[in-house]
Amino acid sequence: MKKKLFIFKIGSNIIENDVQLRQFLKLFSAVAGPKILVHGGGKKASELLHQLGIEPKMVHGRRITDIKTLDVVTMVYGGLVNKTIVAQLQGLNTDAIGMSGADANSISAHKRQVKDIDYGFAGDVNGINAQRLTEILNIGLTPVFCALTHDQKGQLLNTNADTIASALAVGLSSLFKTTLNYCFELDGVLKDIHDKASVIQKIDSKSYEKLLKEGSIAEGMLPKLHNCFEALKNGVSEVRIGNLGLFEQENTNYTRLVL
Amino acid sequence: MKKKLFIFKIGSNIIENDVQLRQFLKLFSAVAGPKILVHGGGKKASELLHQLGIEPKMVHGRRITDIKTLDVVTMVYGGLVNKTIVAQLQGLNTDAIGMSGADANSISAHKRQVKDIDYGFAGDVNGINAQRLTEILNIGLTPVFCALTHDQKGQLLNTNADTIASALAVGLSSLFKTTLNYCFELDGVLKDIHDKASVIQKIDSKSYEKLLKEGSIAEGMLPKLHNCFEALKNGVSEVRIGNLGLFEQENTNYTRLVL
Repeated sequence: MKKKLFIFKIGSNIIENDVQLRQFLKLFSAVAGPKILVHGGGKKASELLHQLGIEPKMVHGRRITDIKTLDVVTMVYGGLVNKTIVAQLQGLNTDAIGMSGADANSISAHKRQVKDIDYGFAGDVNGINAQRLTEILNIGLTPVFCALTHDQKGQLLNTNADTIASALAVGLSSLFKTTLNYCFELDGVLKDIHDKASVIQKIDSKSYEKLLKEGSIAEGMLPKLHNCFEALKNGVSEVRIGNLGLFEQENTNYTRLVL
Repeated sequence: MKKKLFIFKIGSNIIENDVQLRQFLKLFSAVAGPKILVHGGGKKASELLHQLGIEPKMVHGRRITDIKTLDVVTMVYGGLVNKTIVAQLQGLNTDAIGMSGADANSISAHKRQVKDIDYGFAGDVNGINAQRLTEILNIGLTPVFCALTHDQKGQLLNTNADTIASALAVGLSSLFKTTLNYCFELDGVLKDIHDKASVIQKIDSKSYEKLLKEGSIAEGMLPKLHNCFEALKNGVSEVRIGNLGLFEQENTNYTRLVL
């Protein structure tokens, strides 16, 4: 039987809030067995861009990453956010190791092709190095991934953290029984964006199609859900979307996605 | 017989110069067997501080690291410089993994005690995690260290890169035959700072004392040399100081330090 592997992804709202981040890291530290953390940091990157007089450019929720912006996200994601989280996890006795996709050649990607929009140094994932990551997990380390990949030819690339989390969950599902957990500020996927209590507790392929047709799910949630179902189709056991309550065994107030 | 381990430290002048950095990384990639790279990045950190309207503060060549400065060095050392080097090494088929002292709990330190000067979040090294680093080396990874450590309680600390290189060389000398190489813009330690050809090819404890008394060695070089002799006294086999020519077998124009 395959060993369980838990992959958690946290977004900007948790990272921005010192108290919530600390609470999350405590709960994450308490999770037994092999685990991986993936973090974003887009809000902090946009703050630094503003401080440096660079206007952040986003199209369809994706960042246009020119060379200066790449330097900034490399500093914020790979440096400030990643190392701060690693140090805090060490303080909680979790033997964390911070990684980008370039580290240990763990996630390779290619520069996104220019069609109508040139996203610059944005990377679309080719695949992950499951063997290397398994070796790192097997010596008892907990990888903490930032939202950077590389093209294996020397170039760093900016890659969406949700995508990295799902690529890791899919790529490691041949060796582990992987559960993918998206932690954010809401209790789960909402049926009505204006009603925080309208959490949909279970979405399967059928109800997903229905929700898409109804057009009730918030636009920002759509690529996330699409990613989740792709992950499930490609070997991930379960996907959960919710707030820090995901860690509580008796809690059922989150969104569980299954095929 | 112990396996050889080469530790290289590069300073700001190489890091600032894309052509030299690329040349260094090519030579470093070609070194066979286990190896570790340690890099600084002080000049780039000072540049970013200036851009953010923060005046860099240095006392006796050491940076005063207030909390904002810590964020900046974490971004520059742990993010921009570290990840750029790791990606370039991957492009050269060296399976690099970027690390701070917090990663894998590899280098623990304590906040420098305040005597006459408060250096802020500056860390003095307690020790290194030789077992963990050996595991990482043994799976074929090449650690690339930036100049950050941690206090094991959640706090990152800014630590001189020369010190990190020598702590690694000393700490790993019980398991490896370690050679410590300091690469910088000069051919070696100069007898006369105004004469670049005055490289001292060998310094031992005796001639070191003599040079100290004569007062001819540049002030900036003194803590470096002190560090080197401490490393030699504590198990390091050899220390070499020079430019990229250190990598050429027939080159003897560098400074070799022995006890």
